[in-house]
Amino acid sequence: EQEDIEDGQSLVFADLTPEEMSQVVRYLQGHLGVPLVEASRAKPSDNCIASVDLQVPAKAEVLRFLDGGGARPPREALAVLYFGKQPEPNISEYVVGPLPGPAYHRDVTVQKYGGKVPYHRRPVTGKEYVDINALIQRELKQAPRFLAACCESDGTNLVALTTAPRGFKSGDRVTWFVLFHNVAGTGYYLSPVGLEVLVDHGDLHVSRWKLHKVFYSGRYFASTGDLEQEFVAGALEVVRLKQPQADAVLGSMKPRCPPGSPGPLQFEPQGPRYSVRNNRVTFQGWSIAFGMNPNTGPRLFDIRYRGERIVYELSLQEALALYSSNCPGGMSTRYLDGSFGIGRFAYELIQGLDCPYTATYVDRHYLAETDTPKTNQNSLCIFEHDSALPLRRHFSDSQSFYYGGLRKNTLVIRTISTLINYDYIWDFMFHANGAVEVRVHATGYISSSFFHGRGTDYGNRVGPHTLGTMHLHHIHYKVDLDVDGQLNSLETQDMEYQFVKDPWSTQNTIERPYLRRERLEKEDEAAFPLNVPMPRYLSFVSPNPNKWEHPRSYRIQIISFAGKHLPTNSSMERAVSWGRYQLAVTRRKEEEPTSTSVYNQNDPWTPTVAFADFINNETITNEDLVAWITVGFLHVPHAEDIPNTVTVGNGVGFFLRPYNYFNEDPSVDSSDSVYFSSE
Amino acid sequence: EQEDIEDGQSLVFADLTPEEMSQVVRYLQGHLGVPLVEASRAKPSDNCIASVDLQVPAKAEVLRFLDGGGARPPREALAVLYFGKQPEPNISEYVVGPLPGPAYHRDVTVQKYGGKVPYHRRPVTGKEYVDINALIQRELKQAPRFLAACCESDGTNLVALTTAPRGFKSGDRVTWFVLFHNVAGTGYYLSPVGLEVLVDHGDLHVSRWKLHKVFYSGRYFASTGDLEQEFVAGALEVVRLKQPQADAVLGSMKPRCPPGSPGPLQFEPQGPRYSVRNNRVTFQGWSIAFGMNPNTGPRLFDIRYRGERIVYELSLQEALALYSSNCPGGMSTRYLDGSFGIGRFAYELIQGLDCPYTATYVDRHYLAETDTPKTNQNSLCIFEHDSALPLRRHFSDSQSFYYGGLRKNTLVIRTISTLINYDYIWDFMFHANGAVEVRVHATGYISSSFFHGRGTDYGNRVGPHTLGTMHLHHIHYKVDLDVDGQLNSLETQDMEYQFVKDPWSTQNTIERPYLRRERLEKEDEAAFPLNVPMPRYLSFVSPNPNKWEHPRSYRIQIISFAGKHLPTNSSMERAVSWGRYQLAVTRRKEEEPTSTSVYNQNDPWTPTVAFADFINNETITNEDLVAWITVGFLHVPHAEDIPNTVTVGNGVGFFLRPYNYFNEDPSVDSSDSVYFSSE
Ligand SMILES: [Ca+2]
Ligand SMILES: [Ca+2]
Ligand SMILES: [Ca+2]
Ligand SMILES: [Ca+2]
Ligand SMILES: [Cu+2]
Ligand SMILES: [Cu+2]
Repeated sequence: EQEDIEDGQSLVFADLTPEEMSQVVRYLQGHLGVPLVEASRAKPSDNCIASVDLQVPAKAEVLRFLDGGGARPPREALAVLYFGKQPEPNISEYVVGPLPGPAYHRDVTVQKYGGKVPYHRRPVTGKEYVDINALIQRELKQAPRFLAACCESDGTNLVALTTAPRGFKSGDRVTWFVLFHNVAGTGYYLSPVGLEVLVDHGDLHVSRWKLHKVFYSGRYFASTGDLEQEFVAGALEVVRLKQPQADAVLGSMKPRCPPGSPGPLQFEPQGPRYSVRNNRVTFQGWSIAFGMNPNTGPRLFDIRYRGERIVYELSLQEALALYSSNCPGGMSTRYLDGSFGIGRFAYELIQGLDCPYTATYVDRHYLAETDTPKTNQNSLCIFEHDSALPLRRHFSDSQSFYYGGLRKNTLVIRTISTLINYDYIWDFMFHANGAVEVRVHATGYISSSFFHGRGTDYGNRVGPHTLGTMHLHHIHYKVDLDVDGQLNSLETQDMEYQFVKDPWSTQNTIERPYLRRERLEKEDEAAFPLNVPMPRYLSFVSPNPNKWEHPRSYRIQIISFAGKHLPTNSSMERAVSWGRYQLAVTRRKEEEPTSTSVYNQNDPWTPTVAFADFINNETITNEDLVAWITVGFLHVPHAEDIPNTVTVGNGVGFFLRPYNYFNEDPSVDSSDSVYFSSE
Repeated sequence: EQEDIEDGQSLVFADLTPEEMSQVVRYLQGHLGVPLVEASRAKPSDNCIASVDLQVPAKAEVLRFLDGGGARPPREALAVLYFGKQPEPNISEYVVGPLPGPAYHRDVTVQKYGGKVPYHRRPVTGKEYVDINALIQRELKQAPRFLAACCESDGTNLVALTTAPRGFKSGDRVTWFVLFHNVAGTGYYLSPVGLEVLVDHGDLHVSRWKLHKVFYSGRYFASTGDLEQEFVAGALEVVRLKQPQADAVLGSMKPRCPPGSPGPLQFEPQGPRYSVRNNRVTFQGWSIAFGMNPNTGPRLFDIRYRGERIVYELSLQEALALYSSNCPGGMSTRYLDGSFGIGRFAYELIQGLDCPYTATYVDRHYLAETDTPKTNQNSLCIFEHDSALPLRRHFSDSQSFYYGGLRKNTLVIRTISTLINYDYIWDFMFHANGAVEVRVHATGYISSSFFHGRGTDYGNRVGPHTLGTMHLHHIHYKVDLDVDGQLNSLETQDMEYQFVKDPWSTQNTIERPYLRRERLEKEDEAAFPLNVPMPRYLSFVSPNPNKWEHPRSYRIQIISFAGKHLPTNSSMERAVSWGRYQLAVTRRKEEEPTSTSVYNQNDPWTPTVAFADFINNETITNEDLVAWITVGFLHVPHAEDIPNTVTVGNGVGFFLRPYNYFNEDPSVDSSDSVYFSSE
């Protein structure tokens, strides 16, 4: 029984503790030989620690430890540094170890990326946004009469929302900021005032940053002064917006009626049936090591069922939100959320709403843009859920009267990331039949543009002056299935019809379905374009048969409503080239740990990681394989996205289902089984 | 508030009461002027009452009553009679009314079907199966030594499973029966012995029925006597099967370990928040009239949200299970479950497993193949479910700190049909955002063939001698949406990219998505083939705009993993031609109430109703429209289908989602809303 696995094993995947993070920071401060400024205060021309996270040990090393009785891999951290104060400013990545008492650091930048990483690719820090805001505020001072007219504002009650990417070619760091009326206690994302500004913040010296362009409701200006002049000259049509009031503002979530009687609640008569120790959950044969990467978010390792590893790594890679609009900010926006921080923006979960009251809530710790670890309390939850559906059942009144069945109780591991306006609910679910279900729901506020002109070519109007801008949510996962060992192949199965004479009279024709099985030999065959129907069954197969002589397999089943992928002739397409495929199966490489990079957002024109390069027609039979899965949906916001996008219908994901992996459904052994008969 | 609607209104859709059924039976017995034999005893050469169900009044009449203050439509029944004892044996359908004291009957057969319905199209009754079984048992007596060898049997412990259709041309009634070891208390469907027999039971005189053909493990024989001879001559290879023992048999659901601690349960601190009166459920603005058709199963009417009708009728139409095999029974099987009885085989639901303990359980009554109504106790359940997911939420730490959200509590109406071996779980779900979710899960036993030869071309081996035969489950729904009135049009929306110069510098290219809206004018454009990608958004639109000037609409979103539809050159394809389309939108016709007929199963070569004929390119703008939706999945049984197919990953369905129907998400008015902020 997996419950017996020595707990310490899964610690090899454990996120860094706050103490470990602090040790790494102190080590770096003492051993890099360069001055380091705290990231929250660092100017672009300073050096700072951007982040410290676990350096996940190499798979071979981990497996030697877990399976082969080998030594525990040394515990190491990955530290990312922004070196602004160097002759050649750059981003450097160091492996620091061994923890808890670091004694060495190794610059792995060139090894990981094949060269130095230019400084301009770094994500924008909080400090940089503060400095940009100051610039915008200064510039707004040049248009007092316009602002009073358009927005009942002196600029200070406007908030600037960033877009990305920031330009059109490598080295650009020129960002459109969209201005909204700020309303305390509600989402300002629905209250654009029509004003957007283009800021060049590429220079290492903040004093040299400039406002390049101003947009207001369909027109472009060279400066806020120009805008003011035009307004004063009476040559500008202004939509006069009132400063919105908190209670009446579009998108307010303040309850309109007093609380009513509570709905159904879940309780656990004898307490939880799962257990959480350190970074490991166990539940009815399942064992899962969990963690959070500050950038890419949830990551699971060493998913075992009944002691057998099924998945070595199951991790979120990226979330792309690609927008449309007739305003410049909206039409430029292709957010790569990993570069903002899907993990570190997974905040506290609200008991009884985000997860059941009875759930187990776990803290996560991050070191990002600061020298001291930050704790996101209760930001990951684990619970068993009664789905109010049978897992399986049969009622018989034919020949004999009996009933058998089993409830579908599911272990859920959940975290929710708030990425500026919207919230992604990340679920990983484990079923009694040995299936894993991965699911993401989108909720939170939509983003919006000021409604003007032919706005409805780009979305729906959802408020007096608000255009809910069409966009897609495409999400990428890495699934390193290891089905009955590391060496797997990929098999497709699908149905066809054959016309045959009925064998008993040969007088008539039967359209008989048959099963077509195929082994895919090469990576290129195993890269399935988005939106093209895939073979109906697709499995990772082991060379070993089950009792009935079928190869032990796990099937991948995808549920997705993806939009159209960015055309491949786009200059930034390679940065999101994972989005070309709903499923791509590649040979696992230690050098291909992720399908993207946080550096892709600010230089998508020279992507630091281009997933398309992983697919180079290598042989994929009897190899350690990885499935890369894209799910998503096209989101055309509509009135009912106010105040928030609902999760109903906005969930996508995939299943990993045993397919001849066992000799029978493993749930037959469940102590939850119910059976009775008339005998 | 819809709660105020006079209860009696929904009774217009109410299933017949047992008393009403009995009244109709008595009326028919007294007024048809022909001798009627009880169906459970009736020979093919007798007359009998096949079924009595509600005759749903015409929509125009109902709407005059519900909306226009018109008179309550007379309450009527539809009685189906099998007239075997007539010069020209036939099936006749009578409308009988008014209830409760019937005074008239009207033969509607010709009006409904354009002609008489030949007798050979009638479903096979229980009595007919009993007679067939007697014949099979007699015939088996001709092969005693073979049976002893193959099956440790004298035939009496073998059970014969029907297949369908029954031949190759109109008039045929020749059925392959597959023989299984019968094991009390478990599903015999997994224990085929390799023997199958072809029975001609078309003659009105049972004495003239004959066994046409015998199949054993890959070979065909003219009779059981021939089989015995061949065996005795030592020319037959026999797989010697033991009589299976109940506890060890493949597919046993008897628990293997004692019950453990209970998992999470749902409780309702202040009792249910929905209410059920007669045939109407109300819940948080929702009002739904529910019922069951004995053949087609669940049917909902007059689905309203906040007093506005959204759907006039939402009803299951058909479930097709189309099999593959290298045995004759399996390769012939295309079950049309409606002809067996999706409604009347919806049995008692097990509290705490099929539905939560706290659910409300409702009895249903059927009159089918008998003269006395039968009650299926607790066979429909209604409950509110805590899905343990937010319906929507946002956590803000940007600009101001606040949290708002709402749990996703869903009203579920459920019934489960056991169609011989498998069980379909029919769910209708109602969400706080005005969305309806329709879902079906398949579970229960798979069907199987005796494993021999190249069996794995048609499925997977799942036991020593059992081939889990590949099949598809295709399910058809009728959705008569009435969005803001009856007159609707169909609009598609989808995204495309356009390459544009950035408007602020015109130096660079942006791939800007835009929204393409299209009204579909004709039925032919609105018939979307199975397995071909559809436009991403597809809505029923009203001529009236919401507050933001978008047409009030409901969007249809389908989740399906359908298999391949039967080739259209198949001689029986027109009988299941609804399966050509994942979605077809037609003008609503009172004369096109259903997409199929119970008579299609036994004469699919001259289908009584051919859905394809509904699609005749009529104009569909500003008309009363119906959406016909096919969902399903290809099922290649695998070892884990033993003992039962699990619901995980085997659920399909569709959403009806408000799309600019409201001015904002109606859930803002929920008293379940949660909000707090730092202020
Ligand atoms: Ca490769
Ligand atoms: Ca692998
Ligand atoms: Ca038509
Ligand atoms: Ca309609
Ligand atoms: Cu969205
Ligand atoms: Cu099936």
